[in-house]
Amino acid sequence: MSMKPFKELMPREEAVNIILEKTKPVTNTEIVPIQSSIGRVLAVDVMAGFDVPPFDRASMDGYAVKSEDTKGASETVPIKLKLIGAQHTGGIFEGTVDHGECLEIATGSPMPDGADAVVMVEYTELETENVVIKRGVEPGKNMAPAGEDMIKGAKVLEAGTTVIPGVLGALAALGYTEIEVYVKPRIAIFSSGPEIAPQGTPLNPGQIYDINSFTLASVIEMNGGVAYKRGIMEDTMESINESLKSASTFDLGVFSGGSSVGVKDLFGEAIEKQGEIYFHGVKTKPGKPTLFGKVGETLIFGMPGYPTSCLNNSYVYLLPALRKMSRLEPKHWVRVNVPMGEGFESKGDREQFITVEIREGKAYRVFKQSGDITSMTHADGFIILPIGYSKLETGDTVEVTLLNV
Amino acid sequence: MSMKPFKELMPREEAVNIILEKTKPVTNTEIVPIQSSIGRVLAVDVMAGFDVPPFDRASMDGYAVKSEDTKGASETVPIKLKLIGAQHTGGIFEGTVDHGECLEIATGSPMPDGADAVVMVEYTELETENVVIKRGVEPGKNMAPAGEDMIKGAKVLEAGTTVIPGVLGALAALGYTEIEVYVKPRIAIFSSGPEIAPQGTPLNPGQIYDINSFTLASVIEMNGGVAYKRGIMEDTMESINESLKSASTFDLGVFSGGSSVGVKDLFGEAIEKQGEIYFHGVKTKPGKPTLFGKVGETLIFGMPGYPTSCLNNSYVYLLPALRKMSRLEPKHWVRVNVPMGEGFESKGDREQFITVEIREGKAYRVFKQSGDITSMTHADGFIILPIGYSKLETGDTVEVTLLNV
Repeated sequence: MSMKPFKELMPREEAVNIILEKTKPVTNTEIVPIQSSIGRVLAVDVMAGFDVPPFDRASMDGYAVKSEDTKGASETVPIKLKLIGAQHTGGIFEGTVDHGECLEIATGSPMPDGADAVVMVEYTELETENVVIKRGVEPGKNMAPAGEDMIKGAKVLEAGTTVIPGVLGALAALGYTEIEVYVKPRIAIFSSGPEIAPQGTPLNPGQIYDINSFTLASVIEMNGGVAYKRGIMEDTMESINESLKSASTFDLGVFSGGSSVGVKDLFGEAIEKQGEIYFHGVKTKPGKPTLFGKVGETLIFGMPGYPTSCLNNSYVYLLPALRKMSRLEPKHWVRVNVPMGEGFESKGDREQFITVEIREGKAYRVFKQSGDITSMTHADGFIILPIGYSKLETGDTVEVTLLNV
Repeated sequence: MSMKPFKELMPREEAVNIILEKTKPVTNTEIVPIQSSIGRVLAVDVMAGFDVPPFDRASMDGYAVKSEDTKGASETVPIKLKLIGAQHTGGIFEGTVDHGECLEIATGSPMPDGADAVVMVEYTELETENVVIKRGVEPGKNMAPAGEDMIKGAKVLEAGTTVIPGVLGALAALGYTEIEVYVKPRIAIFSSGPEIAPQGTPLNPGQIYDINSFTLASVIEMNGGVAYKRGIMEDTMESINESLKSASTFDLGVFSGGSSVGVKDLFGEAIEKQGEIYFHGVKTKPGKPTLFGKVGETLIFGMPGYPTSCLNNSYVYLLPALRKMSRLEPKHWVRVNVPMGEGFESKGDREQFITVEIREGKAYRVFKQSGDITSMTHADGFIILPIGYSKLETGDTVEVTLLNV
């Protein structure tokens, strides 16, 4: 039996840098229906195959005219034009607008031959066969040329772009039904620890329900990955080796509960033997016993077993890897400055993540212990205390990183 | 034919207030596996059915002791205790820790009878049959009592809570396999306009591809709803009535392209006849021809046909309705203050939403025309100009509401 303490703890920034340096973005791609591409990352540049719009069109409801016919028209000196018909959207008017004539036209409709501008309906009055024009227009007024939105041959979207609604709209405008995107990285989750019981069975003495595979899967799925729950790893070298072998068929393996000291050193030993450990032990609290390494081509995270430690470190250490692997932009954390509703002091040799809830604009600690999931459940966000002694008075402003937006 | 201009335009704030006042949150519920409850809204209070953890447990790796045995122990004056065995997680040690004894214990393991504290492994040294204790502990040190996380009978979660990873963790801790959540509102989408062609078919002269059903569906799905595309509504009273009848079987109906002036007044007439129009025409640009009303028990949005107008107004007007209906918190828009990279001036009798991209920390306009989807495609966010004349110089700070976070 060996139960040895951690040696050197890795400062957070350094740990994240190592994680990002070792993480490679996925390279495989797949083709999905465009509606399903929201939140995915384009694997190809998208060029306009034709002009959008494909024709000159009216940009206002009104009357298509020869602009020179309207010169000088005003409320007091209106001009009358003969109405020769209507051009609604979707159709093509076969005739031509000649001098002294106008054509009713709706927003988005193709401009008829002969016309070079549109008079807005607001500045007209309809008589039986004529339209009274009360404001003159310059050539090109209230119309848009073909290709105004996208010009044929232009690069509209770059590979690497994350699809948001406005990007999806461009794909739709170009007539795409499907689009090539990067695959989502496949992430294997292993729970470990003989105390872990699956939901749906009664707890034996000394057992608790599995929490980490759920919180890990949700962080994975919210950050571009697909989570595969691979069950519970036992504390034997045989089970550990089997799990590591299974993990190495995924893009990333995440183990929870197998990285603390004690007999659990087996896990570290197995990784050291089969691959490499980049760090084991981080200088943040909760979550010291976090391991990052590699087996074969697959990166391995060993997360703490304690549920708040595991979830906290999923946000701090796992999430940046997931987003880089998925080719998503780094997470844009929302931070707000609020006063503490109640002061406190704290001392530690690691950076501390203290979860807080915000009530009536003030932050109150909800952190209990790293073993208590409710430290996260009731949290609106967290504050970070530096290494050493911190004293916060009631009313002192703190920066809260929000977890629920 | 009637082609009449809009009468009174509704200011944005007033329009949003009307929308929120008329929108009712869904009341039906459904039961889903807990992993699928992420982003959903709890329909029930959740009480702890048992203490979590169900037993006193060690919160550090080390040795369970009678604290009084360690009194005064230090590096220089260590105390020796007899090691009587090991209590790892998941098992139950059947014996008792007596005076002069200690038990190896791992984080999370049930405390053995007789022990009332844990000495961290860092402050010990293992000899063959004894453990050298180099630091004394107070009663309760490095252990956590049963129920520390959740006490049996306590209300852990309130109905109405949105499930984020920390909330999911609490459900898992309590052994839930499934949970009751509010249903997602079912939203029907109708495109309209004879110029709209589905993707996958060649465009006829005067036609463009359907964009709005895609962008609308994505905004709906990103804000708690389920989108049902109901096809293209024709500009005839018969088709409009049929579509409204179909819409009234959903929680909300969203029509795009049928709310501009012109023959499209038919749509407003049909709603007025069968239900009520709360407003038609908003004082924002793009997107003036937006309609909000009701047919039967179903609220109806008539969105502008122009793709940027439609998408912009999906964010401004539709989204608040979706989130209230889904019982999600109002959207937490992220806003950043950045200098304009290039000045401009503008004048308008409506509030203007100007899309911008942010390059090297500066905002540049990407808004072209409301008919051009690329006004949104390349946007990182938008700025809002008030009604009237605005002049922004290069370097002036603007507040950008981000669309892509």
